[in-house]
Amino acid sequence: MPLRYGKEFLMIPGPTNVPEEVLRAMHRPAIDIYEGPLLETTDACLSGLKQLFRTEGKTYIYAANGHGAWDAALTNTLNRGDKILALHSGLFAAGWGEASKLLDLSVEVLPGTWRAAVDPDKLEARLKEDSGHEIKAILVVQVDTASGVWNDIQALRKAIDAAQHPALFMVDTIASLGCIPFEMDEWGIDVALTGSQKGLMSPPGLSFVAAGPKADKAHETANLRTNYFDWTFRQGSVHYQKYCGTPPEHLLFGFRKALDLVFDEGLEQVWNRHTLLADATRAAVCQWAKGGVLEFNIEDPRHRSDSVTVVRLKDTDPEPLRDFTKEVCGVTIGGTIGELSNEGIRIAHMGHVNAVMTLGTLSAIELGLAKLDIPHEKGGVQAAIDTLAGAL
Amino acid sequence: MPLRYGKEFLMIPGPTNVPEEVLRAMHRPAIDIYEGPLLETTDACLSGLKQLFRTEGKTYIYAANGHGAWDAALTNTLNRGDKILALHSGLFAAGWGEASKLLDLSVEVLPGTWRAAVDPDKLEARLKEDSGHEIKAILVVQVDTASGVWNDIQALRKAIDAAQHPALFMVDTIASLGCIPFEMDEWGIDVALTGSQKGLMSPPGLSFVAAGPKADKAHETANLRTNYFDWTFRQGSVHYQKYCGTPPEHLLFGFRKALDLVFDEGLEQVWNRHTLLADATRAAVCQWAKGGVLEFNIEDPRHRSDSVTVVRLKDTDPEPLRDFTKEVCGVTIGGTIGELSNEGIRIAHMGHVNAVMTLGTLSAIELGLAKLDIPHEKGGVQAAIDTLAGAL
Amino acid sequence: MPLRYGKEFLMIPGPTNVPEEVLRAMHRPAIDIYEGPLLETTDACLSGLKQLFRTEGKTYIYAANGHGAWDAALTNTLNRGDKILALHSGLFAAGWGEASKLLDLSVEVLPGTWRAAVDPDKLEARLKEDSGHEIKAILVVQVDTASGVWNDIQALRKAIDAAQHPALFMVDTIASLGCIPFEMDEWGIDVALTGSQKGLMSPPGLSFVAAGPKADKAHETANLRTNYFDWTFRQGSVHYQKYCGTPPEHLLFGFRKALDLVFDEGLEQVWNRHTLLADATRAAVCQWAKGGVLEFNIEDPRHRSDSVTVVRLKDTDPEPLRDFTKEVCGVTIGGTIGELSNEGIRIAHMGHVNAVMTLGTLSAIELGLAKLDIPHEKGGVQAAIDTLAGAL
Amino acid sequence: MPLRYGKEFLMIPGPTNVPEEVLRAMHRPAIDIYEGPLLETTDACLSGLKQLFRTEGKTYIYAANGHGAWDAALTNTLNRGDKILALHSGLFAAGWGEASKLLDLSVEVLPGTWRAAVDPDKLEARLKEDSGHEIKAILVVQVDTASGVWNDIQALRKAIDAAQHPALFMVDTIASLGCIPFEMDEWGIDVALTGSQKGLMSPPGLSFVAAGPKADKAHETANLRTNYFDWTFRQGSVHYQKYCGTPPEHLLFGFRKALDLVFDEGLEQVWNRHTLLADATRAAVCQWAKGGVLEFNIEDPRHRSDSVTVVRLKDTDPEPLRDFTKEVCGVTIGGTIGELSNEGIRIAHMGHVNAVMTLGTLSAIELGLAKLDIPHEKGGVQAAIDTLAGAL
Repeated sequence: MPLRYGKEFLMIPGPTNVPEEVLRAMHRPAIDIYEGPLLETTDACLSGLKQLFRTEGKTYIYAANGHGAWDAALTNTLNRGDKILALHSGLFAAGWGEASKLLDLSVEVLPGTWRAAVDPDKLEARLKEDSGHEIKAILVVQVDTASGVWNDIQALRKAIDAAQHPALFMVDTIASLGCIPFEMDEWGIDVALTGSQKGLMSPPGLSFVAAGPKADKAHETANLRTNYFDWTFRQGSVHYQKYCGTPPEHLLFGFRKALDLVFDEGLEQVWNRHTLLADATRAAVCQWAKGGVLEFNIEDPRHRSDSVTVVRLKDTDPEPLRDFTKEVCGVTIGGTIGELSNEGIRIAHMGHVNAVMTLGTLSAIELGLAKLDIPHEKGGVQAAIDTLAGAL
Repeated sequence: MPLRYGKEFLMIPGPTNVPEEVLRAMHRPAIDIYEGPLLETTDACLSGLKQLFRTEGKTYIYAANGHGAWDAALTNTLNRGDKILALHSGLFAAGWGEASKLLDLSVEVLPGTWRAAVDPDKLEARLKEDSGHEIKAILVVQVDTASGVWNDIQALRKAIDAAQHPALFMVDTIASLGCIPFEMDEWGIDVALTGSQKGLMSPPGLSFVAAGPKADKAHETANLRTNYFDWTFRQGSVHYQKYCGTPPEHLLFGFRKALDLVFDEGLEQVWNRHTLLADATRAAVCQWAKGGVLEFNIEDPRHRSDSVTVVRLKDTDPEPLRDFTKEVCGVTIGGTIGELSNEGIRIAHMGHVNAVMTLGTLSAIELGLAKLDIPHEKGGVQAAIDTLAGAL
Repeated sequence: MPLRYGKEFLMIPGPTNVPEEVLRAMHRPAIDIYEGPLLETTDACLSGLKQLFRTEGKTYIYAANGHGAWDAALTNTLNRGDKILALHSGLFAAGWGEASKLLDLSVEVLPGTWRAAVDPDKLEARLKEDSGHEIKAILVVQVDTASGVWNDIQALRKAIDAAQHPALFMVDTIASLGCIPFEMDEWGIDVALTGSQKGLMSPPGLSFVAAGPKADKAHETANLRTNYFDWTFRQGSVHYQKYCGTPPEHLLFGFRKALDLVFDEGLEQVWNRHTLLADATRAAVCQWAKGGVLEFNIEDPRHRSDSVTVVRLKDTDPEPLRDFTKEVCGVTIGGTIGELSNEGIRIAHMGHVNAVMTLGTLSAIELGLAKLDIPHEKGGVQAAIDTLAGAL
Repeated sequence: MPLRYGKEFLMIPGPTNVPEEVLRAMHRPAIDIYEGPLLETTDACLSGLKQLFRTEGKTYIYAANGHGAWDAALTNTLNRGDKILALHSGLFAAGWGEASKLLDLSVEVLPGTWRAAVDPDKLEARLKEDSGHEIKAILVVQVDTASGVWNDIQALRKAIDAAQHPALFMVDTIASLGCIPFEMDEWGIDVALTGSQKGLMSPPGLSFVAAGPKADKAHETANLRTNYFDWTFRQGSVHYQKYCGTPPEHLLFGFRKALDLVFDEGLEQVWNRHTLLADATRAAVCQWAKGGVLEFNIEDPRHRSDSVTVVRLKDTDPEPLRDFTKEVCGVTIGGTIGELSNEGIRIAHMGHVNAVMTLGTLSAIELGLAKLDIPHEKGGVQAAIDTLAGAL
């Protein structure tokens, strides 16, 4: 008995729901790429990115996904044979490191687990060992969508400083920018990157890199540079060069509108909204968890991300639950991936999400738990409502 | 602290949420009106309407809203000075009657209340009194969006038959077609009408009339006929005549897609979905009502509509609650109108609505009740979830 | 060998090309009809209509096509049995008159032809005969899309004044408003009406009526009034009343954007653009006409409309030419209708039309004439180019 | 006196006019990237690309523009220090070579001019000199949008064969695929690449590479491979890998619809359409050229591209002409770039273009020439019409 016939909801950790305004902005003919309104669009996007990253550094727009931005960060700043240190806390930092092996980099992974944030003390210890400063870059994600962890970037920066280590500090904010606080300059980050399709509410296909002065300096001598991702070429005076070729116009029209939406709401307000909806989600999961089957993947509550909540289901196949919410209720929630594959669900509260969407999604999950006889303590949605009532 | 930044929901009893597919179908250039694909579109719409009304009668499409369809029903079948009987059960049947005064008809309203369905016995009694058969038409709504009542059209037909009265039986299904069962031919209805913007999930601007053989017969001698609404002209062989002028193409493109959606889901399944979501809504309201402030407008549970639930708030201004769900949560619920103006809220579960939307809306209302200290028994959403879990 | 695969052009005299901005404005969810932004939209549309009609009178928006507006004009101002005079100059004024017979009006048609404008002298003569002032309303179209005629409304007004006749003067501007000058108040017009889908560049489904003080006065006692079209009800204070029911939201979103486009370009500039493109079209037709087959339907050059050019093809079936331009070239031109049915073609230069579209259309026609061996003097497009080069 | 208010035309050599159907296909919410309909979309795009390239080889889709595809072609098949030979015939092959310098390749440019195609004999001679087979890849464009040249890829292949040279033959078809014949397998091409935004009628942001068996073999040992562009990873079994990360969903929805349009029209028919519209354009330019100012950039008529015509204006600033067609007539034509910068205009007849668009564009240019007193022989549009009339 399907009840899904209505708006379909995509509550996965990316791509996320695209606002109607963004889709509408993209529904237009192509325009000239050498002159006219596209130039102003580019300027607005580049400066909007500075506001998002909170940086005075340079920003770049790539027709590419987040993996393209990973390559951009590394190839623009490093040299063949350089060693890099990837800070493990789930799938993505390690994945970023893995990806760089093809680039002729030597990758070391700082050991970590899928259930905890990166430990700043461990980082500091490892860097102190590296007295010869062989490590040229440190790679971390602010939020790992696979594990649901939130890493404390400020604390990691302090660890690097404590070790007096000169490595470039590179942060992947794909699953966090436009969701939770990020302060590139204040926190001393050298390269930050993100994608269009998560907190930034736009279709996938664009990624963005911000580079601070230390990264700029490294760029001057980097020999891994490639034509497509190269920063120098993209700083050329011709508009066309800013994209190393034809600009992805429609995606830019959409992204520019998404930036407007973020700034119209107010970036701090966006962060607050994400915190509240994450709190509501966690309250529901806490209640359900009393039944002994559901549990948070991230053990330390302080490190659970405000953009996605990853929940394990002990000895229980999560697919029937995901099928139920999708086919019967009309909401797609995320499956777990990587090491957690088929171990649980991922509930996104990321981007263009409001109280009705989150509460409706939690209701669908609770309905599914009941219908499928998955042991849980009832009252999860009630707990979410109570949490919001207390916080608003 | 607004949490409304996400998809906005319109849970009012019309216009309702328009599916993306319908909006997309409308986003196209105008086309020729004398030949080509528009002709096939018209045929598909006219025959789709027969399937919706469940009739072998003739169907008509008007560029007009539901009030236009009211005029169409009356002017095509009646004569100056005719008496009509409007069956009161809220705002709309009486409104229809009121509207017809300008047409030089004599309108009698069968007394009723805003809190109950039309009583078939009363109708039978009144018709029996009319031994001279002065009453030429009987007007009723299947669902009144203002009161939330569901009238039992079959029972009313039986009352007419019991009185052996020849009046035309005209049913307004604006707030019910595409939501709940309606059987024009099986139930013996002479004229049925509806609009595009409620159960039929399309933008407002189109209305539809179906006429059975008795109505056709009456049409032959009706002297209230007007050019724009006239059935005879609209049966002409030229495509243009079917709309008495330029067809409202874009609305037709959208409506045709909406018909596809209804039939793809299956009309019976659409009805079942509405029943289940209405049950969930009523379960929540029942729970909240224990707090002594909320109560159903329609007293007899058998006559509460499956397309909209009207709730009174005793001694409580409903506007802060509606503002809260809209501004803080992102869902617009209906205010009460007519005699009930400012007395409560109207929760629609009509058209393009799924479990997530209904449960999310109920959650937003429960959050609002809590936040605004409106006395209610907690657990409404839980009751809705339990109801669905039991029924699915 | 079809070359039509590109943007399709609709160069028929309505519906016309809908600008992308208008379609985009319509691509959005439904919104509340009792409060919020829709109220402002209505105000903007009603006052924009005043600017278009150039009147201080009242304006009304109908969910209806132009034939609905015909009914609205008549039923709001006349009484049963009234005599009206329709000024023949093609299809539409006579059609308007014909349509009103169902309304219990007595219709007289002032004789005219399909090839000439209404003669003011004849009108004056007929009105002078009507010493009892039995004629209550005079109906005329400013441009007849079927014949291509332009009637001189000012001259006709003078004729009425010369006869000192008190009849209401009603002008159908469906095929002219937003294309050529119209001055409702300055020219002394009592009722003017139009539709959304021609000069106003919007999807069909809306029509508009403007009423001056004399019409308002007549309205007070008019007994033909009907619920749906009634002006009094539509002047009510509730927003909903302005549309006698649910407003056709999406059409309003689109029309409002179309108004913006007209006023951004500038109404006088819009008129000039239509004149120039009509001049170009006529220059081409003049050239082709030297071949002895093509000729203008309207014999007096001063009365050829600036919104549509109607061309006869002597002893030549026009359908192969229309098929050619559509199937091979990608542009749909109009067929002739009514008395001229299958006698020629209609080339629209109406609404959202620029030089490329008109010159491309003329090129396609000239190509079709050549390919189909329809006798014509070559150089029509060249003449159009020369005309524009001289005028710009 | 601007007459541009109508559909705006973009007749530049990319990005090109995007069909309404393609824009509509993109106007939808994001969907899941791990399962569901996106998988089928990818399969359809990859196999559609094989049909376009006419190959049994492997195809790859990149979220990147054409310059990204350049990098993809080179990095997947070559090694550091390899020598490549770029065949000069305008801007792009040389540009491709230039771009590869950052990749640590040694680039040699086979001398050529901006006014002629690559000479197969010269290629053969150069390859014969390379007895040690140091040249590992030969780079050429089929059409150069900057010069307007069409290179004879088959003849160049024969030259390579005649020299018995084993270098990989790589062809950039960005400005030609979906416009003119291309036979990857039959002609013996090892790597072909293109972009979404020209003949393929889609928004920019996607590029495509096809690789034959020899390229696959080279890939196995290529040490220039990078993570983002790597073919091996993209052949992984997980859908996500096919895009090395999040797929650019909306661009894929659009591109898939564009493929449908191409195959519905028929690929051969698409080619014929381009030839005819190019012939018409060249006929007009020939006529204008008699005035002594306009001339074709490519001197040999056999090598003028069927997708874009590049025209020089002797001693005449072309910008007023481009401004005129855009601001007064409503069509944007291309400016010249590179060595030809400000020397002339580029008239595209590429992608979603029909007879009305091309003839309208030519008319606007002829009007501009007349209005701006740029010497030219009148009758260009007439010549275009005559050409089409003869050919259809």
